[in-house]
Parts: sequence; structure tokens; C-alpha cells
Amino acid sequence: MTLQPKRVRDSQTTISHLMHITDANPQGNIHGGVVMRLADEVGGICAARHAGRPVVTMAIDSMAFHSPIYIGNLVTVKASVNYVGRTSMEVGVRVEAEDVLTGQVTHANSAYLVYVALDENGQPAEVPPLIAETPEEERHMQEGKLRQQERLRRRREDEERHTQH
Amino acid sequence: MTLQPKRVRDSQTTISHLMHITDANPQGNIHGGVVMRLADEVGGICAARHAGRPVVTMAIDSMAFHSPIYIGNLVTVKASVNYVGRTSMEVGVRVEAEDVLTGQVTHANSAYLVYVALDENGQPAEVPPLIAETPEEERHMQEGKLRQQERLRRRREDEERHTQH
Amino acid sequence: MTLQPKRVRDSQTTISHLMHITDANPQGNIHGGVVMRLADEVGGICAARHAGRPVVTMAIDSMAFHSPIYIGNLVTVKASVNYVGRTSMEVGVRVEAEDVLTGQVTHANSAYLVYVALDENGQPAEVPPLIAETPEEERHMQEGKLRQQERLRRRREDEERHTQH
Amino acid sequence: MTLQPKRVRDSQTTISHLMHITDANPQGNIHGGVVMRLADEVGGICAARHAGRPVVTMAIDSMAFHSPIYIGNLVTVKASVNYVGRTSMEVGVRVEAEDVLTGQVTHANSAYLVYVALDENGQPAEVPPLIAETPEEERHMQEGKLRQQERLRRRREDEERHTQH
Amino acid sequence: MTLQPKRVRDSQTTISHLMHITDANPQGNIHGGVVMRLADEVGGICAARHAGRPVVTMAIDSMAFHSPIYIGNLVTVKASVNYVGRTSMEVGVRVEAEDVLTGQVTHANSAYLVYVALDENGQPAEVPPLIAETPEEERHMQEGKLRQQERLRRRREDEERHTQH
Amino acid sequence: MTLQPKRVRDSQTTISHLMHITDANPQGNIHGGVVMRLADEVGGICAARHAGRPVVTMAIDSMAFHSPIYIGNLVTVKASVNYVGRTSMEVGVRVEAEDVLTGQVTHANSAYLVYVALDENGQPAEVPPLIAETPEEERHMQEGKLRQQERLRRRREDEERHTQH
Repeated sequence: MTLQPKRVRDSQTTISHLMHITDANPQGNIHGGVVMRLADEVGGICAARHAGRPVVTMAIDSMAFHSPIYIGNLVTVKASVNYVGRTSMEVGVRVEAEDVLTGQVTHANSAYLVYVALDENGQPAEVPPLIAETPEEERHMQEGKLRQQERLRRRREDEERHTQH
Repeated sequence: MTLQPKRVRDSQTTISHLMHITDANPQGNIHGGVVMRLADEVGGICAARHAGRPVVTMAIDSMAFHSPIYIGNLVTVKASVNYVGRTSMEVGVRVEAEDVLTGQVTHANSAYLVYVALDENGQPAEVPPLIAETPEEERHMQEGKLRQQERLRRRREDEERHTQH
Repeated sequence: MTLQPKRVRDSQTTISHLMHITDANPQGNIHGGVVMRLADEVGGICAARHAGRPVVTMAIDSMAFHSPIYIGNLVTVKASVNYVGRTSMEVGVRVEAEDVLTGQVTHANSAYLVYVALDENGQPAEVPPLIAETPEEERHMQEGKLRQQERLRRRREDEERHTQH
Repeated sequence: MTLQPKRVRDSQTTISHLMHITDANPQGNIHGGVVMRLADEVGGICAARHAGRPVVTMAIDSMAFHSPIYIGNLVTVKASVNYVGRTSMEVGVRVEAEDVLTGQVTHANSAYLVYVALDENGQPAEVPPLIAETPEEERHMQEGKLRQQERLRRRREDEERHTQH
Repeated sequence: MTLQPKRVRDSQTTISHLMHITDANPQGNIHGGVVMRLADEVGGICAARHAGRPVVTMAIDSMAFHSPIYIGNLVTVKASVNYVGRTSMEVGVRVEAEDVLTGQVTHANSAYLVYVALDENGQPAEVPPLIAETPEEERHMQEGKLRQQERLRRRREDEERHTQH
Repeated sequence: MTLQPKRVRDSQTTISHLMHITDANPQGNIHGGVVMRLADEVGGICAARHAGRPVVTMAIDSMAFHSPIYIGNLVTVKASVNYVGRTSMEVGVRVEAEDVLTGQVTHANSAYLVYVALDENGQPAEVPPLIAETPEEERHMQEGKLRQQERLRRRREDEERHTQH
């Protein structure tokens, strides 16, 4: 059975979260890990929308945090599917932090996350092909493919290294 | 004033967390972002112990999740300082998931995180030099230095690219 | 000092929240009170954006719940300032629930909430005038004014009744 | 099968909740939505006690907040069934906030909430008749009946308006 | 300055809590530690009401759990001051668990907790004398005094044992 | 079927928890009940590891709190099985609080908790015999046996007293 292809915009997801005191560490800083968890939640919703199935995270790429995020900031995460394999999807997320009272956006960075769709038995399930409608979406698809090939190459290397020991 | 050097083992930190239903997504899967947040919390305690000061996360390197983590698993995160710059520290974390009832360890992976120490005004503060006592700690220090140089190189590239636009 | 007027769209706010198991009662239903709290949080951000100040809720109008919301639904709340008094603002919120896996929107309703802006001492503070740019925004402003007059009338009645006892 | 009638006092419920920092917004105010959610939780327990079955919220009437609630206040919610239809129940809640250290009650207001009992398949289930034992309970029953008729009338109007479009 | 004596009933406190899924462990059991924490929260409110000051827990006496508590049970904790020293108070708590749908009370036990009042600098502060109005309250006061003397005796023994080493 | 005996060290469990603002009461103190709940969680993991089955808490012995615990302290709980009956286990826990920035351990105390293993139907299940390998473990086992006999004697007394009424 061939799955009906879906467009990038069909699963694009934007979620905003107001940073509470429970998101900060005891010194009052909001750590990068909190942002990562939020990015993963939004990325997972985006991937589930494309797949029409539950998903699990397979990989989270590196992320840098150049400016601090404060309690009371409104953090907005935008997620789009960049590239799909047979059962996996690379999702790009963009994170912005806004000071609600001044309207100033103080923080922005990006990350890539990889998800796998799961069938009823928790096994990898095929996902619909992805339709890129704009040159920018085309470019994201090409770059996502290269990143995914690089990830799989590194994973094979890791496994070979572990087998030799 | 020169800070008193500290050994790697002076700040090594191990924290275990029992995965609760609040750590799972609505489909019952524990996503990678939850593990990342936990890794960042433990890495941050380790860095604060070395610095003797509060810290913030500057970067989280990529992490892959090859086997699922379930509710009820006991996840243990071990963190050590690998390398220190003037105000920054690279911390390596190792994550394991254990099925408490059978004792079986089902999941293990690693990540690197970078923290900066903060003074009373929230500005970067100097951290103590790091003493590597074993060949393995020596190797971690060398590798951490290379990774940190690579991170700074990439960051300069990013900034140049943003300046040109 | 006269405050710079702001347009409706300058403070419009959309926030999505994925319903977790912690949002449900022990029988697994997501109660209306959870939706009300979410509506109030988003309405409060919208009002704070318009005021450029912290706000508190003064009144929440009635809300009906005709179709159930389930764990895993993505609830989206859209908030706009309808009408502003000297220190108070009426915000209209529209709530939708989407089944992420099928894309079906299963639930939609509306409510009005009233907020007051607070100055540095926690006292009511003046808010900027509101600019309605479209006929629909004009209508919202007229209707909001009537509702607010009705609320104040009822409040005076309540106070008189309490004084007589 | 006719259900055994129950008295108002058989399901009356009083629950107190100490306001924590997690109940406040980032500016430290406890918003009305938090009180609404608490009122709905207590109202739901009261309705479930009368019905002897799980319930869901169908409507929450308007509520005004004239004086602020602070972190550390003990908020007490008292709920009684006012009126029952075939499968629905109107519950009245009264909310008070007490400063624990001084014993001063600083805040009091009321709201009406409507619940429907659910059978094993999640469908509306009959609820026991309600016995009013005092003139005050008689009055609550009469007023609750009028409010419920008004709610149903407004709901029919809403549905007709939606059908016409 | 002598503090105005207070009656037992002036600070008696009853708080009910509906057991949620977040109160259970991953196997679905509600552990005794959750009940203990709730008993301590209610006992602390009762002690703060008597003292008119913040308090900290000094000791929690043993508690046995003979019948299980389930998610959805309404747990009610009643707390009374039994006995007061100069700066300390013994509070007795009684815990009951009710199945909301059937009205059956399935669980009941008791514990004693000791609190100390704190002044503005976090140092022990004098508390008002306690007035017992009934023979039962008299008996609680006598028994509380004996238990507190026994606790202090055991504490002195512990300290002597630690000093000898 | 005889269960394979296990050594004390096979189930020894150490868990650290960084005290957050959500663990404190509104006055900023971390109450003893929070420590008790944490001790019970760690004790329960230790008991489940020995039993290879889910467990419930049957009793928590008294605990005294001589020095305060602050937000930001790293609380470490170490748990060992002291003694096992046919279906019950006494677990000893030792609690320490460390100031992460200075490395100073500011708080230490101990408690005993009793757990029962549960089979698939929630009924008490046999647990493996316990092997004490050191003189200290031998002593813990003897003392645990005496404490458990004392607990059962007191429980019988309680039940007789309740039967007479």
C-alpha cells in the first residue's frame, strides 16, 4: 500500500510556552535542557502529524545557547519536517524567546531532531512521502538527506567499534 | 588571584531518576528530550561543583537514542568534567536505563555539554584548573579541548554569516 | 502622559498545549476547569502584551463544553483584546482541540475574560487605547463595551445587596 | 430502575488547597483560572458523590475576582448540588481565601458549574433525585432549575445560529 | 511579652486531597511516603495557625499503612495541636481515604508530628499557650507531653553516642 | 519453589535529588514530609530490586530533622535491605544533604521502612532470602528482626484494642 504524500505545511507546528519558575533551576536560570525538551515535544507533534502515527525520538542534534532565557519569557518553537526516509523523519525546529512586556525577541537558535513512526506493535512504520513546494523546502530536503546519511554512517561506525571489543 | 586546581573526581556526579508517567508523552513513550533535560541537570550540578559557582548551559552536543526507555525504568546519569577553559567547562555524561525488577540495563549512550560559570552579577567567572589523574582522564581532556575548539570555530562561522546578511 | 495606542493585532496571542495525563482527572476525563485555566493563561499574556505591564484576572465569563477533550489532543487558544477601559481590558479567547494523528478539530468554544494592568506597587495602571482596524474588530469593541458595562452594573448590585445586610 | 434519592448533604464537599508558587504566574499573581480549575475539581467530586459515577463538566458560569489571592493563602472551596436534571447536576461552589498566619479571610466569591454523569461507555447516565431538606436548599433548587433552563435555551439559540450559516 | 493563649479548635485544620496519577508510583500504588508528605503539609498549616508564624518540621513519628490507597480516593487529613512547649508544638493527624463513588471509607490511621515556630531571622520563636477545653483535649495534652519528653530523651542519647565516637 | 537468595549489595540503591522550589513550602522551607517521601521512593526501589516484584509501603518509622534543608541542596538517599520476612522487607535509609557550591554536607539522618512484595493479583508474594556478607550486615539483620517483631506485636495490640470496642 502506498501512502498518500503530504506537503511540508500540512504538519508544520508552532507551540508557545511561557517559562515558569518550575522551568528554572534553583539559581533561577533556565537551562538549555529545558529548551531541548520543549523542542523535542514540538518536533514530536510535527512528526506525528506527518506520519499520522505515534513517534519516538531517535536523535537530537547539537544546540548552542548564546543568550539567556528568563522566567516570564514566551518561548515559541516552530517545527517543520525537512526530510523523510522510509520510517524516519528529520524535523527542523527554530526557537525564539520573547519578553512579553516589551515585545523584544531576545533569543533564537535551531536544531534538528530525528523521529521514527511506530505501528500498533511499537515497530517502525512507513511514513508518507514529503512534498516540497518551495525552493527553500527543496533545499531543506537535500540538506536533511545529507545529515541523515551522515548520522547513519556514524552509527554504523559506532556499532563496528563496539563489535570489535 | 589564582584558583586552587581541582581533580576530576572532586566534582563527579551520579544521579538516578525513576521514570514516572509525567516523563512520558501521551502515547506512553519517554522521548529523548526528557533524557536530555535530565542529562543537562546532572551535568549542571557537576559543573557547579567544579566551579563552586552557579552555571548556565552554553551548548548541548548531539545524542542518539537506539533503544526505548519505559516508565518504571531507573535512569542513571554519570557526569564528569572533561576539560576546562577560562570560564567554560565541557562535561561528559553517560546515561543508563535499568529495569528495576529484572536488573537488566537496556539503554546506554553519551553526550557532551558545555557550561559557563557565573559571578554575582551573572557575568562569566573564572573556574579552577582541572587535574587529570589517570591516562583516561588525560585523553578526555585532550578530546574535550579539540571539541571545544571546533565548537568555537563553528560559532565564529555562524556569527560571520549572520553579519554578512 | 498619554499612552501610545496599540492595534488589536499587536497583542494577539496563540498558544497550543498538548493535553497530558496530568491534565486529566483520575477517571481520565479532561475537565472544563483545565481548559479555563489555559484560556486564562493565554488571555493574560495577550493582555500583558497590550498593557506592557503585568496583569491580574478580574472576571471570567461563562463557558460551555459540548464535546469532550482527550489526552493527546492539541488544544489551541487564540486571544485578542476586544475592548479597553482606563485600566481594564476585555480579552476574547477561542479554544480548539485537534486530534494530532487524524488532524480532526473536535472541539471549539469561546469565552471572555477581563484583566486589570498593575503598576510597580500592584495598583491599577492605565493601559494604551485600542485601535480597531477592521469592521469585525469594531464590532468586538462595541460588544465588549456593552458586556463590560453589564458586568460593572451587576457588581454594583452585588455590593449594594451586601451593604444592606 | 428508579435510583434511590439522595440528600444535598450526602454529597457536600469541602476541599482546602494551600497556594504554592506553582499556582502563581511568573509575576507572582495567582490568576482567576487557577481558582476556576480548583472550583471545577471540587465541584466534580461533589457531583460524582451524588451520581455515584464519574462525571464531566458541561458548563462553568462566570466568576468575578474582586480581591487578590497570594501564595501561602489557604483557599477553601465548598460545593453542594443545587439541582439535578435527568443526567445533569448544577453544583454551587463558594471559594474563600484565608491568610493562615493571621486567620483573616480575604476573598470570597461563588460560581455555578454543570456536570453530566457518565456510564461505563462514556454515555450520559441517570442520576439520583435530589432531596432538599431546608428552605435554603429548596430555594437553591428552584434557582438552579431556572439557571439550567436558561442555559439550555441559550445553547439551542447557539445551535440554531450555527445551523443557519 | 506573654502571648495570648489559643484554644485547640482555633487551629484545627482539615484538608482533603484527591489522589492523582502523579501521586502513584510507576506500578500504580500510592506509597506511604505520599501520605506522610500530605500529613506533614496539613500538620504544618495547623501549627502555623496556632503559632501565627512560619514553622518547620522537627520530627515525624512512625506510621503504619494497613490497607492500600488507590488513585481517585479522596484522602482527608485532620490535624490538631496536642501539646505545646516553649517554641515547639506536637500535632496529631488522622488520615482517612474515601472511595468517592461508593462513599466507603477504606483507610484510616494516625501520626504525630513536631513543629518549631520560626521568627523573622529563622530562629525558634515562642508560641502561644494551648487551652484544652474538653477532657479528650486534656488527655491529648498529657500524652503529647510524655511523647515529647521521650523524644528529647532519645535525642540526648543520640547526641551523647555521637560525642563518644 | 524456593527463591534464589540475594546479597544485601545486590539491591543497594543510592539516589540523589536536587531540591527545587516545588519541594519547598510557601515560606521557602523544605519540610520533613518531602524528605520522607523521597526516602520512601528510594526505599521502595531497593525493596523492588530485592523482591524482583512491585512493592507497597507497610510502615515508616519515625524520623527527626535536626538541621534545615535548603532549595539547591543535593539530597542523597542510600537504601539497603536490613531484614526480610516471608513477604516483607525492612529497608534502612540514610539521608544526606549537600551544599553543591561549597561541597559541605549539612544534614544526615536515618529511618527504617517496611515493604511487602506483591504478586500479579496484588496479593503478598514471597521474597528471596537475604544473605548478609559482613558483620555489619549481620548486625543490621538481627536488629531489623527485633524491630519487625516489635512492630507486629504493637499491631496485634492495636487490633485487639479495636476489637474490644
